[in-house]
Amino acid sequence: MAAPRAPAFRRVAVLGVGLIGGSFAATLRARGLAGAVVGFTPGDDARIARDLGHLDGVAASVAQAVAGADLVVLATPVPAMPAVLVEARAAIADDALITDCASTKQSVIAAARAALGPAFARFVPGHPIAGSERHGPDAARADLFDGCVAVVCRLADTDPAAFDRVHALWAAMGARPTELDPARHDAVFAEVSHWPHAVAFALCGAIAGGPNADDALRFAGAGLRDTTRIGASSPDLWADILLDNRAAVLDCARAFQAELAEVLTAIEQGDRAALRVRLEAASRWRASLGPARRR
Amino acid sequence: MAAPRAPAFRRVAVLGVGLIGGSFAATLRARGLAGAVVGFTPGDDARIARDLGHLDGVAASVAQAVAGADLVVLATPVPAMPAVLVEARAAIADDALITDCASTKQSVIAAARAALGPAFARFVPGHPIAGSERHGPDAARADLFDGCVAVVCRLADTDPAAFDRVHALWAAMGARPTELDPARHDAVFAEVSHWPHAVAFALCGAIAGGPNADDALRFAGAGLRDTTRIGASSPDLWADILLDNRAAVLDCARAFQAELAEVLTAIEQGDRAALRVRLEAASRWRASLGPARRR
Repeated sequence: MAAPRAPAFRRVAVLGVGLIGGSFAATLRARGLAGAVVGFTPGDDARIARDLGHLDGVAASVAQAVAGADLVVLATPVPAMPAVLVEARAAIADDALITDCASTKQSVIAAARAALGPAFARFVPGHPIAGSERHGPDAARADLFDGCVAVVCRLADTDPAAFDRVHALWAAMGARPTELDPARHDAVFAEVSHWPHAVAFALCGAIAGGPNADDALRFAGAGLRDTTRIGASSPDLWADILLDNRAAVLDCARAFQAELAEVLTAIEQGDRAALRVRLEAASRWRASLGPARRR
Repeated sequence: MAAPRAPAFRRVAVLGVGLIGGSFAATLRARGLAGAVVGFTPGDDARIARDLGHLDGVAASVAQAVAGADLVVLATPVPAMPAVLVEARAAIADDALITDCASTKQSVIAAARAALGPAFARFVPGHPIAGSERHGPDAARADLFDGCVAVVCRLADTDPAAFDRVHALWAAMGARPTELDPARHDAVFAEVSHWPHAVAFALCGAIAGGPNADDALRFAGAGLRDTTRIGASSPDLWADILLDNRAAVLDCARAFQAELAEVLTAIEQGDRAALRVRLEAASRWRASLGPARRR
């Protein structure tokens, strides 16, 4: 299949300008993919992002940001999406593409379907796999998406040309666009991201609330630092994601608790053979995932 | 307190020559701290380590390695320690220091007390915090201990001069020797290392045995890679450690499961405020631990 021509946009509206929205804006500007990039956030993030050089301008409202834009990028926290979509709707141009960067897809799609009317055909859901324990516009970077997978979803009523342009945009931004069904997305990302965040938070929370919290800070090695890195992530962002993708997260929780129960029973009973079987299967899968962290 | 003079040894016997024993040998040689470093393992590891330049010689038995040594380093897996100590005992010179590198301390100390007789006064338990998901002599490096904490234990019947020499040896090898009580060591390292390994193994095992194993390989980002890195560790080594430090590990398991239950109840009930409280406490503790991985 021939790659669609890399798209260039007249004016891009970025709604929500934290790590992801800020990096989206910075990447568009660094790669010359937009005539102008305008941002809006309710707080100071858009002004901070502009001062860092990630935005050409700051809008005073969602509607002002969206007016005249031929690409609208939703990069707000998940719970803010429905209201932002409703506010954007009246101002969205007839030829504008709309995409998002949320960590969950089904709820955002439902909100967009409810809010956008006919413009829903030009909404192409997306999710760049480039999150971090860091957040906010200060953490944004024009190379954040380099080489990362960017999930894009095609729905039954998605305009094929709109899909192709968003797909091509991610490639032009340096990412690897990858099509995935929304329900599958939410199940897979519960497994590879949302549930591991819950586990890392619980590991940190148990240490923090226990008798070894201070000595753990003193004696932690690379193992604990890596295992819990994402436990430093934003409590607000992750409370929202875990609640939004609740059903898939609870599926993962059940599977994890069953596996952990097997491991603990083997430890309690001193059953080395049974313990080794669990650790061996886990270790083999992890080894197949490859090195620790892509940089 | 004045630092004791950096010790130099005539002949060092390294029993067990994997990641830690091999790195101990390599560091002694690289820093000119020993006249000769001789290794023994039941399998091929000692020969591999010699061929890599980490050892001067390979002994045919524990007794042959230990004969004439003024420093004996136990770096075998924990379950092998009692038999190796018994085998070493008859050959240990009257002036020889003895130390170990095991991840647990109380069981090794009990085995040494039972095996060593009067030489137990010259046994100074140690634990360099330099483990890795890699293992074996191929992973050994002369800079593995650079800047790492090396726990050293002083027992009621430890010869003060022996303690000082082992303490000074770790400093001479580039590590930061740190005194810690053995029971406290086992509780703290269950928290910062052993239990996080069990959690990482369970996280990998649950994914590996579930419906998303293949897609998880495809879509894993830095978060899952870091959170599960130590889940690729040796199943044999970790089965031994988890069983050896069982009581402390099960204490950590209970605290973790209680914390996880709070998180899950909040998710199930859609209680954002309760969920946020848990995530916030966890995130605050993790942030105080500092950057992800020391390199």
